This record gives sequence, structure tokens and C-alpha cells, in this order.
Amino acid sequence: MNVHVALLHYPVYNRQRQVIVSAVTNLDIHDIARAALTYGVRSFYVVTPLEDQRQLIERLLTHWRDGYGSHSHPERKMALELVTPATSLAEVVASVTRHSGQQPELWATGASLGESTLNYSEVRERIRNENTLLILFGTGWGLSKEVLDMVDHRLAPIQGVSNYNHLSVRSAAAIILDRLLGTENEK
Amino acid sequence: MNVHVALLHYPVYNRQRQVIVSAVTNLDIHDIARAALTYGVRSFYVVTPLEDQRQLIERLLTHWRDGYGSHSHPERKMALELVTPATSLAEVVASVTRHSGQQPELWATGASLGESTLNYSEVRERIRNENTLLILFGTGWGLSKEVLDMVDHRLAPIQGVSNYNHLSVRSAAAIILDRLLGTENEK
Repeated sequence: MNVHVALLHYPVYNRQRQVIVSAVTNLDIHDIARAALTYGVRSFYVVTPLEDQRQLIERLLTHWRDGYGSHSHPERKMALELVTPATSLAEVVASVTRHSGQQPELWATGASLGESTLNYSEVRERIRNENTLLILFGTGWGLSKEVLDMVDHRLAPIQGVSNYNHLSVRSAAAIILDRLLGTENEK
Repeated sequence: MNVHVALLHYPVYNRQRQVIVSAVTNLDIHDIARAALTYGVRSFYVVTPLEDQRQLIERLLTHWRDGYGSHSHPERKMALELVTPATSLAEVVASVTRHSGQQPELWATGASLGESTLNYSEVRERIRNENTLLILFGTGWGLSKEVLDMVDHRLAPIQGVSNYNHLSVRSAAAIILDRLLGTENEK
């Protein structure tokens, strides 16, 4: 299994469907790192083009990986070992390729993906076949068209039992990793 | 389907396995409310015996349901309509019973539940049979023995593919609701 995830803060939409750089949220990093470690994800990239936002990520990582937090909360340290800040999606793809010796398939996720999506069983099959996968999560109101146009596949949005489709990216990432990587027989 | 959830801030353990009242976290309320609405949960109780903490919840609810936030973020308003602050688990059980005309089955969740747990397919069956269910989530380091001893059933902990079992309660709640209430055929 060779699965990587990236959380993009650019290019994403805001509520008015303008392309923006969204702000980094600490709990996104903690929660998705913990879910990633739970499900055997190899690496978790947090992507923003803004230098000061990447410094904020670095400070959070230093606190929990090397500073006081590493002793007081060792389970956070373990999860945050997976995290790497990155400037752009291109940088992430280059990094995964370097570490895996293989260009990753890019998978987009999003609540508003409509046409041409693949379902979870199809992706599980590709994971079993040892493809290198990079799953992209968008903050704000989702990944912009620019990203969606360049990915290999789009994952079907999570539908609950209502028409409401406003999960937090933290919740959506947890559910998607569970669907793709969770052990079948415990469900 | 008649499923309710409660997030308990007491009685729960801290890291040293002492029973404490944990602090209310805003994002727990937002994230679990959004997941609850997505999956058709009827009500979401946020439980703490501390008066000032319940006031904090009320302020959050007022802001997003009636105040400025209700216009700027209507999708948060919708989700937070499900939320009721409560003083104790007993109060929640009484409220669910009053609204459902039926005493709910109590289901505990937790990362460290060992013996005598039931798996997800067994719970899905009970949901289909129209049982009234109240699913309990613990903050901090999990629901105390006092709660575990009084519930009807314990749900098997989420196991990923690693031994790491430190999901946030936000992530765990999202995954559990998806497993129990998500549409089978989209997986």
C-alpha cells in the first residue's frame, strides 16, 4: 500500500467561488495526521504558497515533534512525523515520486464533484494493485477547476442520507481514509 | 431510523486515567453536528455538568443559529439546529425518551473498548429494525467505566491498519456515523 495525502490551501474556492489561498487550521493538521497514521498513509503534505503560513506549520510541527509537546503528547508527535509543509502541488508530486520511485496517480476529492467520479471499491482495487496514490483534499469550498482538470481521477463525493453536503475537511478525510483503507472485516 | 448522539465531557478519563470534566471544544460541536446532519441523526446532545461551559455552548449556538453567523454561514446554522446542551447523560436519556416515545438503547464508543463489543453490521441491523439508539462519544481519553457499565452495548473500536488508535473524537464520530448510517451502495 503506497498512499499519500495532501491538504491544499491553494488553489481552492471560497464561498463565492473565487480562487483563494485559505488559512491553515491547526486542527486540520492534527486530525488528518492522526487519521493518516491510523490508516497507514505514508506521508501527509500540507500545501500553501504563503511563506508565513508554512512557518506557522513548521512552528506547530516543532512544538509537537521536538518541543514540550513531544513529551506531554507522544501520540501527537507520532502522527505529526508524517507531515511535510509544501509550497505547491507540483512540489508534492515531485516529492512523492522521489520517495516512491513512481509518479503517483492523482485523486481529487470534493463534496461538489459531479460527473466522471469513481466509487470507493474501484479505488480500493487500485490500492491493492500497489499503485502509488496521492489523494488531494481541498480546504475552503473545495479544490479549484485547475486542480480537478489535472488529476487522474475524481472520487465520488460522500453522500450521507440527507442532501446536506457540508462535512468539515477533517471529517471528510477521516471517512474517505476509512472507506479506502479500513479493514473490510471489521465493518 | 431513529438515531441520536451525545458527546460527553463528563465522566471521562484524562491521560492519567483520572475521571475529569473535559473542556468543550467548539470544533467538536461544529464537526459532529455537520456529520450528524449528513447522516440523518435526529439530535446531538453536548453534555457537561459545568454551567459556564453550557453557557459557552449556548453562545456558540446563538451566534450561528440566530446571530450574524446564521446569514453568513447558513450551512452551519442548519447543522447546529440539531444541537442541545445537557447537564448529564440521565437528562439526555430522558429527553430522547420523551421525543421518541421509547427508551433508547445506549451504545458506547471508544478506542480502548476491549471485550464484549459488537461490530458495525450488528448495529446496522438494529438501526434498520427501528430501534431508538443513543450513541455516546467520549472526549478526553474516553468514557469512564461508570458509563461503560451502564450502557446496553459497546461498539467495536475503529482499527485502521496500524496499532495507532488516537483519532480525534471528531474523526471517530465521522467514521462511525458513516459506517453505521452511510449508504451501502456508494462504498
